[in-house]
Amino acid sequence: MRSAQGGAHEMGGRHISGAERLVVLQRLGKITQDMLERAFSHTRGSADFVNITIEAVPREIVKPVRLLPTRTVDVLDFTAGRAAAKSELLSIGVSNQAVERGMEQLVKLTDSMRGAMLVCAKTGERLDNTGMRGIRVSRMDSNDEDVLNQWMECQGLQGIHAREGMILATKVVSAPGVIAELCWSDDPEYVTGYVASVKGYIRFTKLKPYGSSLGGRVFFIRENSNVAELCKYLEKQPVLVTVPTEGEDL
Amino acid sequence: MRSAQGGAHEMGGRHISGAERLVVLQRLGKITQDMLERAFSHTRGSADFVNITIEAVPREIVKPVRLLPTRTVDVLDFTAGRAAAKSELLSIGVSNQAVERGMEQLVKLTDSMRGAMLVCAKTGERLDNTGMRGIRVSRMDSNDEDVLNQWMECQGLQGIHAREGMILATKVVSAPGVIAELCWSDDPEYVTGYVASVKGYIRFTKLKPYGSSLGGRVFFIRENSNVAELCKYLEKQPVLVTVPTEGEDL
Repeated sequence: MRSAQGGAHEMGGRHISGAERLVVLQRLGKITQDMLERAFSHTRGSADFVNITIEAVPREIVKPVRLLPTRTVDVLDFTAGRAAAKSELLSIGVSNQAVERGMEQLVKLTDSMRGAMLVCAKTGERLDNTGMRGIRVSRMDSNDEDVLNQWMECQGLQGIHAREGMILATKVVSAPGVIAELCWSDDPEYVTGYVASVKGYIRFTKLKPYGSSLGGRVFFIRENSNVAELCKYLEKQPVLVTVPTEGEDL
Repeated sequence: MRSAQGGAHEMGGRHISGAERLVVLQRLGKITQDMLERAFSHTRGSADFVNITIEAVPREIVKPVRLLPTRTVDVLDFTAGRAAAKSELLSIGVSNQAVERGMEQLVKLTDSMRGAMLVCAKTGERLDNTGMRGIRVSRMDSNDEDVLNQWMECQGLQGIHAREGMILATKVVSAPGVIAELCWSDDPEYVTGYVASVKGYIRFTKLKPYGSSLGGRVFFIRENSNVAELCKYLEKQPVLVTVPTEGEDL
């Protein structure tokens, strides 16, 4: 689902919200209703254009991926949060130049994008050529919503942003060539952001000022990665994120 | 809503079904669910691609149009039905050549189209250049579904095909330059078709062989009509069809 205000995205409308699910046919109706409700009552504004695309996915091509371990870092303000996020990215192997340039590209956005920017983890150069559209990660979900909800509750996590962020980041980190993701939301009321990598999904309680509707995602990509293959994986490979059951170690 | 099998229409998928509604926001969720159910259980096959586009329409630009009067002509078989439909078209002012060529283009279809063919009512020449896509009539509905259902019951009419046909034909006939519409369904189980014009919505109980999944629409257009304006009206002008209330003359 993607929604916009002032007409369709391709007609110059402003992006309001998007959502991606991977569900069994029986749940399609309910999920679609929920998406519509969300599109028409978003904190970024009410949509006047909504597009929903549904594609059948053969079960045998769905890839199971284990949910990333999660940790929350409390920070005083978004300046402290961004500094901590930078440290985290450096510790994962993203170069200082790439961290600076990647974050700069996110900070300098004048409006939100539907998708993510792909940035070289060494040079910080933008690698995709999709401009303000970005690469949209699609076809992922949790394999069991109830188990995920329980697990989140145990972790003290709640809300659709955390849920969607973890699912998306888990798929992104499983993609060939991705070293890390940096993200903060375009929802003006949601200031928590994260850095994700094989080390885990690290939340920072403040990565942007309250009230800002500018947010986005940067994926830091290993040098000399096959960008076309990577985009295909992000956009098309169905992924179901498996949630650790009670007692099982992450 | 449009649905296809074997991928999206634009990727070569086969058109399965389509539906157009114009409803208040509160009914959006329910209507969308119904559309999805239909897409996944159509007599033409089950879709594996569905696209739903929702656009806000300002109430003040919605045009009310009176439902066409309706009559049903019983025919023995589809040969007799097509002969009767031809007579009806001639009586409205479509030329013999245009009737023959228009019907030929419908009969010769090798698969169904999402939209209609625009054909000159004098020469029978195809006027739109949309090939197998056709011109899709959109943004129309009845102004009161309950009243329409009651009215249909009084007329001995039932089912989604009759309902959708009458609404669509009423909008089509109200369009600038349209003289008549000829239609039979691509639903293999539905053999009734119609000719619509200012004279009314004339149903013929058989216009194609049972089991055929080939159907479509031909709009007969007055010579020298502004085709671009006409297409804009058919695709974009919101129309709510008003249903005569009890005692009111059609």
